[in-house]
Amino acid sequence: MAKKLTSRADDYSAWYNEIVAGADLAEHSAVRGCMVIKPYGFAIWEKMRDQLDKMFKETGHQNAYFPIFVPKSLFEAEEKNAEGFAKECAVVTHYRLKTDPNDSTKLVVDPKAKLEEELIVRPTSEAIIWNTYRGWIQSYRDLPILINQWANVVRWEMRTRLFLRTTEFLWQEGHTAHATKSEALEESEKMVNVYSEFAQNWMAMPVIMGSKSESERFAGADETYTIEALMQDGKALQAGTSHFLGQNFAKAFDVQYTTREGKKELVWATSWGVSTRLMGALIMTHSDDLGLVLPPRLAPIQVVIVPIYKGDDQLEAIREHITPLMENLKLKGVTVKFDDDDTRKPGWKFAEHELKGVPLRVAIGNRDLENGTLELARRDLNTKESIAFADAADIISVRLEEIQESLFNRALEFRKENITEVDTFEEFKEVLEKKGGFILTHWDGTGETEQAIKKETNATIRCIPFAEKPSSGKCVYSGAESNQRVMFAKAY
Amino acid sequence: MAKKLTSRADDYSAWYNEIVAGADLAEHSAVRGCMVIKPYGFAIWEKMRDQLDKMFKETGHQNAYFPIFVPKSLFEAEEKNAEGFAKECAVVTHYRLKTDPNDSTKLVVDPKAKLEEELIVRPTSEAIIWNTYRGWIQSYRDLPILINQWANVVRWEMRTRLFLRTTEFLWQEGHTAHATKSEALEESEKMVNVYSEFAQNWMAMPVIMGSKSESERFAGADETYTIEALMQDGKALQAGTSHFLGQNFAKAFDVQYTTREGKKELVWATSWGVSTRLMGALIMTHSDDLGLVLPPRLAPIQVVIVPIYKGDDQLEAIREHITPLMENLKLKGVTVKFDDDDTRKPGWKFAEHELKGVPLRVAIGNRDLENGTLELARRDLNTKESIAFADAADIISVRLEEIQESLFNRALEFRKENITEVDTFEEFKEVLEKKGGFILTHWDGTGETEQAIKKETNATIRCIPFAEKPSSGKCVYSGAESNQRVMFAKAY
Repeated sequence: MAKKLTSRADDYSAWYNEIVAGADLAEHSAVRGCMVIKPYGFAIWEKMRDQLDKMFKETGHQNAYFPIFVPKSLFEAEEKNAEGFAKECAVVTHYRLKTDPNDSTKLVVDPKAKLEEELIVRPTSEAIIWNTYRGWIQSYRDLPILINQWANVVRWEMRTRLFLRTTEFLWQEGHTAHATKSEALEESEKMVNVYSEFAQNWMAMPVIMGSKSESERFAGADETYTIEALMQDGKALQAGTSHFLGQNFAKAFDVQYTTREGKKELVWATSWGVSTRLMGALIMTHSDDLGLVLPPRLAPIQVVIVPIYKGDDQLEAIREHITPLMENLKLKGVTVKFDDDDTRKPGWKFAEHELKGVPLRVAIGNRDLENGTLELARRDLNTKESIAFADAADIISVRLEEIQESLFNRALEFRKENITEVDTFEEFKEVLEKKGGFILTHWDGTGETEQAIKKETNATIRCIPFAEKPSSGKCVYSGAESNQRVMFAKAY
Repeated sequence: MAKKLTSRADDYSAWYNEIVAGADLAEHSAVRGCMVIKPYGFAIWEKMRDQLDKMFKETGHQNAYFPIFVPKSLFEAEEKNAEGFAKECAVVTHYRLKTDPNDSTKLVVDPKAKLEEELIVRPTSEAIIWNTYRGWIQSYRDLPILINQWANVVRWEMRTRLFLRTTEFLWQEGHTAHATKSEALEESEKMVNVYSEFAQNWMAMPVIMGSKSESERFAGADETYTIEALMQDGKALQAGTSHFLGQNFAKAFDVQYTTREGKKELVWATSWGVSTRLMGALIMTHSDDLGLVLPPRLAPIQVVIVPIYKGDDQLEAIREHITPLMENLKLKGVTVKFDDDDTRKPGWKFAEHELKGVPLRVAIGNRDLENGTLELARRDLNTKESIAFADAADIISVRLEEIQESLFNRALEFRKENITEVDTFEEFKEVLEKKGGFILTHWDGTGETEQAIKKETNATIRCIPFAEKPSSGKCVYSGAESNQRVMFAKAY
């Protein structure tokens, strides 16, 4: 515990890895690229999941569950989707192992148990779901279908990083079916707004909403909306996407419905998802060189109370003293932990809770009992104050709200400082290299220019921001006419 | 909707399948043996999951997440576990598909992308988890570890039935690590009690707790505890199991800890799980020839209000009239739906909600508005009563409690009638054939007798009930001495 973290300035990537390990969030497993999400990390993910689930239900969605396997032939049905997803994937070819005839302690694949058709472990579920929807949709009465699924997915990634890019990850994928194009478009816009609201109000993470350029769209989508967040190292992180799929999957899987007027029409589709990648975004948005910093709304423990005592009598006196406070806090909906572990010293506990990002720490000792005080430490500012015990519950509630707001404002301030408008390619490269962050600039709208910029600088168009007003100018690269600035950045 | 279900008496199996389909619970997917859990079925599962999750947390457990893949070599480490699980399983051998060189619309496995070591899609996670625990456990301070995981698992079943036996299913698996044998035993007993409490108080399903005979134990366990429920066709259903794993996995994965005294010891283990199979148990315990019957505590919709109206004015008058009732019910924690779908007639809706097992149905029309009444129908008894509108919220709350209790009592009564004590093998066979149900009889404790009985009758020892007192007698098959009756049945 005494060991200090690598600082962000020294090695941002090492800093990130050390926080993930040190705060007990996740670790690499025996399976290449797959992670183990540890209880503390999972508790944060559960809070995110539960809140998102609530927001999905409030917007009329229901959960369901579709198979983990996608038969190869279903992937072949939608060409772009296959191109984008079916290639780097886990392929199940057999359904049995047998004892190795040469070594009875070993198992080998039984060649007799070869599948007639290979199964892909789902990298995303459009294919299996739209193949199912064909059976569910006959008439306009069956629409809309507003379904979400919480699931694990597998994409065979070559370079993996905990939470940010793993072979297996957890996510939710919404899959909706609509009678009209406008309804489907409205749904995909609604859901990117839900993501934005969640990111800002719960993760305290400011995001920029916008559309993806064609080359950055989901494989099989006519339009992809995204929320883009800025990390402290100046790189962008795509935190959630919502796709308008047009009639592409309805065509591929022949999903038609009969209108009120008795005509046959293809169904319109959307899909949208966020994943455990959000954990990476959360960590990198707020944490500091002392460890994880968590917004109170997603903190598994919002307040930890550390007793400073000698001997059991003092510990019991403190326990008795703080019991009404703990009950009061619980009534206010505050999650509080009394850390009475007698195998660890207070200093060890302080460091541990700091590293784990507990938003507020109370320290209370014998002297405090006499004086009717306690010490309250804020993790976000790393400040301490002595407060009256009698006011503690109220002050703690207020501080938690303040921390939530203050983290958002700090991140927003950082982002404001790191959005730069540029008008020449020299400037573009200089900002990208020296400052990083988001770059707003004119682009001629062609894939060629986009590719050329990417090749030369590694920066990609993160989005065409919804909030960016039309403005005429010249493309930063080609000099051709442009009528809107778009947002470039290097990205995770 | 007009089509009646096959009756239980005519064809129990067809009846079950028709309820699963008709009540929109689940369906077969394009992947052999894998199911799609539809929104209504999933909403029931969510209620089960949320309650179980609450009970696990109240007993000190935390959730985490481990990889879906288990490298083949990890399975080889625990011989019995490998024997029991690693054989009929989904095997990932490759990580890439490529475009078929002979047909650019097709995909084929890329032979260059063969894995060095095959990955098994987890059939259960002891191997991957204990391999991970080795890194987490050094000292007594690290114990106990009390972890649960909600996950999908895959077992390559040859004959599948929706919910009861599917290739992929959803479940929770608890995996705990302890310093002492007695602590691990206590944990495994505690968790089978949690399952029993859940089954009885939430599913309204009486269960018998007991130990499995050696041959029916989990592969890798020293002791398996089970809850066994009786279905309406007289067959038993194993609804949940909790395993005392001894030090088997600690040995296989070399998981040791240092005691307070500085000695090295192997760690003790338990695991315990319930799955979407509980959905099958729930359906078969309560449903009748009219469709699904649900205990109110697990019903996604507890009360449905069907307006009987002509024209929009009447509908709006009813809506206005019942709005305070709906709000009142929501305040009481009752889930209520106003079924104002104008594309369906009341008769259609009645049949639909009956088939879907909504515990209470309110019908309300113009006449009721004038009289200050409404009609309340109970799904469990298929009875109707006219009640005063003013008392409706209170009566509905009371009826929901009554239904929960009444379903449990009915199932308990049925089980009592279908537990038979027998003392001769002739009687055993006769009861099994003509009456079914649980048979309590003396057994000599040998695997040979158990196998012989199974071979001759298809009945297995469901458990050695905790509640069954020692009593001396002769084994029903071999005539050898026995000091306790055990419980036999044919089983799902």
